[in-house]
Amino acid sequence: MKLLRIGAPGEEVPAVLGEDGRAFALSALTGDIDGAFLAEGGIDRVRAALAEGLLPAVDTTGIRVGAPIARPGKVVCVGLNYRDHAEETGAAVPERPVVFMKDPATVVGPYDGVLIPRGSVKTDWEVELAVVIGRQARYLADPAEASDHIAGFAISNDVSEREFQLEFSGQWDIGKSCETFNPLGPWLVTPDEAGDPQALGLRLAVNGESRQNGNTKNMIFDVAYLVWYLSQYMVLNPGDVINTGTPAGVALGLPGTPYLRAGDTVELTIDGLGTQRQTFSNA
Amino acid sequence: MKLLRIGAPGEEVPAVLGEDGRAFALSALTGDIDGAFLAEGGIDRVRAALAEGLLPAVDTTGIRVGAPIARPGKVVCVGLNYRDHAEETGAAVPERPVVFMKDPATVVGPYDGVLIPRGSVKTDWEVELAVVIGRQARYLADPAEASDHIAGFAISNDVSEREFQLEFSGQWDIGKSCETFNPLGPWLVTPDEAGDPQALGLRLAVNGESRQNGNTKNMIFDVAYLVWYLSQYMVLNPGDVINTGTPAGVALGLPGTPYLRAGDTVELTIDGLGTQRQTFSNA
Repeated sequence: MKLLRIGAPGEEVPAVLGEDGRAFALSALTGDIDGAFLAEGGIDRVRAALAEGLLPAVDTTGIRVGAPIARPGKVVCVGLNYRDHAEETGAAVPERPVVFMKDPATVVGPYDGVLIPRGSVKTDWEVELAVVIGRQARYLADPAEASDHIAGFAISNDVSEREFQLEFSGQWDIGKSCETFNPLGPWLVTPDEAGDPQALGLRLAVNGESRQNGNTKNMIFDVAYLVWYLSQYMVLNPGDVINTGTPAGVALGLPGTPYLRAGDTVELTIDGLGTQRQTFSNA
Repeated sequence: MKLLRIGAPGEEVPAVLGEDGRAFALSALTGDIDGAFLAEGGIDRVRAALAEGLLPAVDTTGIRVGAPIARPGKVVCVGLNYRDHAEETGAAVPERPVVFMKDPATVVGPYDGVLIPRGSVKTDWEVELAVVIGRQARYLADPAEASDHIAGFAISNDVSEREFQLEFSGQWDIGKSCETFNPLGPWLVTPDEAGDPQALGLRLAVNGESRQNGNTKNMIFDVAYLVWYLSQYMVLNPGDVINTGTPAGVALGLPGTPYLRAGDTVELTIDGLGTQRQTFSNA
């Protein structure tokens, strides 16, 4: 099942895609797709209503797609979680997940414009598998418990300003939290439909030129481990988002460091999770 | 003016303290003290209603005090912002603010219990002046503009687990984001009443023994500079919280590193902003 939110920024309404790709409105079931909706078993209710043919069809032609989750409580990110990306950035392969955070207000729709911050000369891309939490995770006993706490998966572009991230101080968050720096979506894809989260190809192209071409099988710490690990140190709440790291091919690691400029278009795809596309402009 | 939220966790109702210290209910004016309330000029409406004697008195005896702001969108923290604290931790005095984040869900009431994470042996305290944003700040032209964007001030205990923060990776957030790690309050004190934010004494005692005794005049980067600086790299939204750093005297910097143990009680005071008190227990 694919959940989505459509409409102008701040006015999105919830919808679901049926197996044939048609969209159905969820407004009769919930006001929004958010942490409260996920916590109260909303996805099961959508599944039942869809199966019973109770939902009205909705024409999404020409309507903006928002992020598939409203108001995430936090966006937790894992750095250097693909061996090839750690190598390209000159970092050691970490012994533990490297955990940082983005401002949750950076989350925007998958086709929204992304702003290059004022003064930025090192704005970079990162295609990532995002995990959306569906049930509170606190001190999970074992990574095998993680799947019970995952609502679904989405594409995330963990946009990063490398000067702010790496040259201002030892802490990365300021280079990860600029306005519009987290396109998410187009869909929240439920685990049954996404399949094995460790067997997904991730691709990213800039102006049509392939830049990243990885696979989640190459994660150093897999999704189940990350959810378990994070739950030992923080409470993961329904609606929280985990960006699970990016494979090789970011501008920082490429010859000539071809950082993004106004007018550049970035396209991201993950197997089964759809495609994002953003055009960058100056803030 | 002092705004506060009283009631059980998740069921807090808004209130205000009059000049004589009596509490008045704000439920007729707003459902809560949150970013939306601040953005729509809520504080001015409270001031007017209080002056006109329109608010019903409320007896707060025995009622829990929550954090004075509901659901902050983000908690941005500034590290090493007092020269003496940078020295005690062995860190260089930074040339730019060191910026990291806490999970906003860590915010709890000023007298709530704080949990020592499982496996923790280095749970530490940090008394800090918290700034609550009242109006969106984005690319402010000058630090002099900052005051227009500040709703008020509060005490914050930026509780920190030093092993998680400093020994797991180079990124601090995981040691700052444990459950209950950000007691806030008791009040949101408006700027007119708080006075000069760079002339406030901050004190912290553990089991009655003085541990921190600083003054905001010793900040490396002052409040106006921090709001201006952060606004160059992220959007500060109404209800967001900035923890502005801690003076010397944390366990990490003391002889014998006397980290917190279950049963310890920490008391924090900032001039004009009231007092917090938390008892620590094992998660």
